[in-house]
Amino acid sequence: MNDNAVKIYDTTLRDGTQGEGISFSVTDKLLIAEKLDAFGVDYIEGGFPGSNPRDITFFAEAQKLKLKHAKLAAFGSTRRAGAKADEDPQLRTLLDSGMPVMTLVGKTWDLHVTEIIRTTLEENLAMIEDSVRYLVAQGREVIYDAEHFFDGYRADPDYAIRTLAAAMRGGASNLTLCDTNGGSMVNDFQTIVQQVVAEFGGDKVGVHCHNDCGLGVALSLAGVAAGAGLVQGTANGYGERTGNANLMTIMPSLFLKMGKTAPCAANLGELRELSLYFDELANLRPDTKAPYVGTSAFAHKGGLHANAAQKVKSSYEHIDPALVGNRTRVLVSDMAGRSSVAMKARELGLELDEKGDGMKRLIEELKELEFQGYEFEAADASLKLLIARSLGQTRDYFEVVSYRVMVEHHGADLTAEATVKVKVNGETVHTVAECVGPVGALDKALRQALDGAYPQLREMELRDYKVRILESGLGANSRTRVLIESGDGGEIWGTVGVSDNIINASWEALQDAVNYKLVQTESR
Amino acid sequence: MNDNAVKIYDTTLRDGTQGEGISFSVTDKLLIAEKLDAFGVDYIEGGFPGSNPRDITFFAEAQKLKLKHAKLAAFGSTRRAGAKADEDPQLRTLLDSGMPVMTLVGKTWDLHVTEIIRTTLEENLAMIEDSVRYLVAQGREVIYDAEHFFDGYRADPDYAIRTLAAAMRGGASNLTLCDTNGGSMVNDFQTIVQQVVAEFGGDKVGVHCHNDCGLGVALSLAGVAAGAGLVQGTANGYGERTGNANLMTIMPSLFLKMGKTAPCAANLGELRELSLYFDELANLRPDTKAPYVGTSAFAHKGGLHANAAQKVKSSYEHIDPALVGNRTRVLVSDMAGRSSVAMKARELGLELDEKGDGMKRLIEELKELEFQGYEFEAADASLKLLIARSLGQTRDYFEVVSYRVMVEHHGADLTAEATVKVKVNGETVHTVAECVGPVGALDKALRQALDGAYPQLREMELRDYKVRILESGLGANSRTRVLIESGDGGEIWGTVGVSDNIINASWEALQDAVNYKLVQTESR
Repeated sequence: MNDNAVKIYDTTLRDGTQGEGISFSVTDKLLIAEKLDAFGVDYIEGGFPGSNPRDITFFAEAQKLKLKHAKLAAFGSTRRAGAKADEDPQLRTLLDSGMPVMTLVGKTWDLHVTEIIRTTLEENLAMIEDSVRYLVAQGREVIYDAEHFFDGYRADPDYAIRTLAAAMRGGASNLTLCDTNGGSMVNDFQTIVQQVVAEFGGDKVGVHCHNDCGLGVALSLAGVAAGAGLVQGTANGYGERTGNANLMTIMPSLFLKMGKTAPCAANLGELRELSLYFDELANLRPDTKAPYVGTSAFAHKGGLHANAAQKVKSSYEHIDPALVGNRTRVLVSDMAGRSSVAMKARELGLELDEKGDGMKRLIEELKELEFQGYEFEAADASLKLLIARSLGQTRDYFEVVSYRVMVEHHGADLTAEATVKVKVNGETVHTVAECVGPVGALDKALRQALDGAYPQLREMELRDYKVRILESGLGANSRTRVLIESGDGGEIWGTVGVSDNIINASWEALQDAVNYKLVQTESR
Repeated sequence: MNDNAVKIYDTTLRDGTQGEGISFSVTDKLLIAEKLDAFGVDYIEGGFPGSNPRDITFFAEAQKLKLKHAKLAAFGSTRRAGAKADEDPQLRTLLDSGMPVMTLVGKTWDLHVTEIIRTTLEENLAMIEDSVRYLVAQGREVIYDAEHFFDGYRADPDYAIRTLAAAMRGGASNLTLCDTNGGSMVNDFQTIVQQVVAEFGGDKVGVHCHNDCGLGVALSLAGVAAGAGLVQGTANGYGERTGNANLMTIMPSLFLKMGKTAPCAANLGELRELSLYFDELANLRPDTKAPYVGTSAFAHKGGLHANAAQKVKSSYEHIDPALVGNRTRVLVSDMAGRSSVAMKARELGLELDEKGDGMKRLIEELKELEFQGYEFEAADASLKLLIARSLGQTRDYFEVVSYRVMVEHHGADLTAEATVKVKVNGETVHTVAECVGPVGALDKALRQALDGAYPQLREMELRDYKVRILESGLGANSRTRVLIESGDGGEIWGTVGVSDNIINASWEALQDAVNYKLVQTESR
């Protein structure tokens, strides 16, 4: 093994899902496993089949995946005290997952052995060795996760090492030292890992860290610096409490700063996209301040810095942002400055004269809209329509006369009905539609009204719908912003609507979504 | 000086305001300075008067503050090349701030000296020494910020040390080594700080770190471990790009884990409140995953952990949360077992028999609801109602017969109307209300219907309203989850509703919000 080789072990699908608000469907999990494999990680821990029925379904489906490189792992714990490994139902469930790798967690800390699982220190050693040996005998690779390793080591270093030796005798391929409570300090942690590496060899040692002291990344890197050959972590640091060690931060430092290597190092340029992919599936707002991959990670605000970065770029950026798929951003303090609006227009395929009167009007309008609560970062399509209208480069495809939405609940009956009256090509069309929800009903009625004139609208569908109350503390009456994401199989576009009324905000975003599709198909 | 003493230097008001979206008014800044002083930090850097007119106003006002302990610092840079210190307008502005401490930034990195400010290496040394000497001669304490110190040291260690020696000769009280680009790795950083400490003495050395590699906290702690006696950082890690080193994370580790001490160590129990105070003034959503002070920092989700935490609390928490003003939270999720549900019930003031049949039914119901998309993590009030109903410890305060909501848009007219029919104390009440939005109209109609029977509802109001589409990709028709936050001046509570119809999901959450208020006022 190359001295600089490190294995990347992703546990987003297991330990990451312990995070508050993190929940993936079976389909999400399958998509993520394929994505991680394509990126080149070495191990993908898919779940804990013994504790979660959804994970059993995932593993059944995961057996059909054709992965290029990554090995899938199922997570479980050592056998019960006083029982036999081959009769342990939980180990049976693990084997039934059909995965080539089993990651087994066991106790290191004497306090946990005697107070939590209430058995003897000797029986705990037997539980570890038996369980690993049994799974290895069934032809599986076993990674041993030493829970609370660092707390245990501090309490009784000899016993902590004996638990690892038991796993090794059982045939474990790797001993991963877990800082389960996340309470370690870096220097102390590094010294302990060095001692374990001296005992068992770095290629047999891994680390699994948490961020409770804001050191999840630092500890992981310290583990590798101490010789560990495997790092566990999660995408974007998802995980219980303050999260697991963030692989999106660990990987670039390993490959760009510490001279380490792994198959996925070749794909580091896709890191930002990978990070955003996870947030999208987890339905989380991306952390703009995330190291390396965040939108602000290479943003320069102070005039001094922005200017200097232009002179000697490397002098104000610790790496070339392109190495992780990110880019330098210069922030314009005046939110809608001319050059940034012109740049944005160009990005959207529109040419805008920076010096012209049209630009001045457009900036005034943008400022007014932003003041009202419109936000165009996730609504490029609405921004493009706005600019195109200001340039006179688009026409009105239809005119809304009125709409009405009614939601009625009586006994067990719940209905939503919408009527829409629009003028299209000189004709008035009046339609009505029902749906489970009011926005769906509006969408349906609007499409029915436009179907005769614009059959291309059949290609598009709503993909996502987000609502945000802009002035919290004012209750449900306050200003509401709706973001709608639409797609037509090819492109995906975002639109925005703002109103005191959630239905009306949705209606605005819906209209923009449809208008954008019409503009795009006309200009093709 | 006590070997374990560390000085805490807060630069939230200067470097922190370089962060995207961070902006404080002069009043905010004055409030923050008083708050930081009350907490006990040693230095408060208030601004950069040479670059920001608002900061000049701040310093004029700040001179009137009566601080107990903290020293206020104004930030500026060394004199221009080829000019005299006593004729430098920027140094004059600094002195005019009237502050007792001046923090002067100067160049360490030869690349910056020759390429950015375009002068000679010798002139740079003179600029540092002259500027410090001049300010010291005017009776000020000068802290020297060595910009890009680590990059500079790696490029030319001798020159880097000579810049520090120049500041020292000028009379600087402290040499703060800045990792300006945030690109350092921990071990390398620590070795360099050790070398500087060996040269100048630890009580003369400080560190100023950024989080570009996710190591802002780790580097700061490594600096102190290497002997540095002063740490610069910002509240909640505000700052340019990925932010400055987060003092809210650094301080507890220094005081609770590294045996360091400072006047503010005595107030660590107010840390969470201090952190939330900053977010409130900065108008930022608090980071629930923030180490030590985040809402999730001591939250336990997995059934296993929750159970163990009850048995041996310290075994799953790296510190007692009360030490930083935080608390343990138990999260209910589909991974939850009996013990965490029982713990949660206790937290909510309900006693639940862990072994009973009621518990079994409750867990089944919770699992089913979570499968449907309910989430109780931010909806404790809905959970409490559910448990109370399952225990038969609450009654039905009213019965809903029907409701109807209509939103109508015609020309410029937009109306939302709701009707509600409920039975209260045997009587049927039918009400209608208008509001700008449909949820507001429903809320109004429901309160009108209940007002006669339950006037205490007048005390409560909706505070926040969140909508999430659970199955993205299915469009606006898909399952929707609504979270409502309500308050009555005293308590704040969250409720949840789930439905295919956004109005109906809102209605469910509204009903729970009202029911919770009724349960609470009845049990008082």
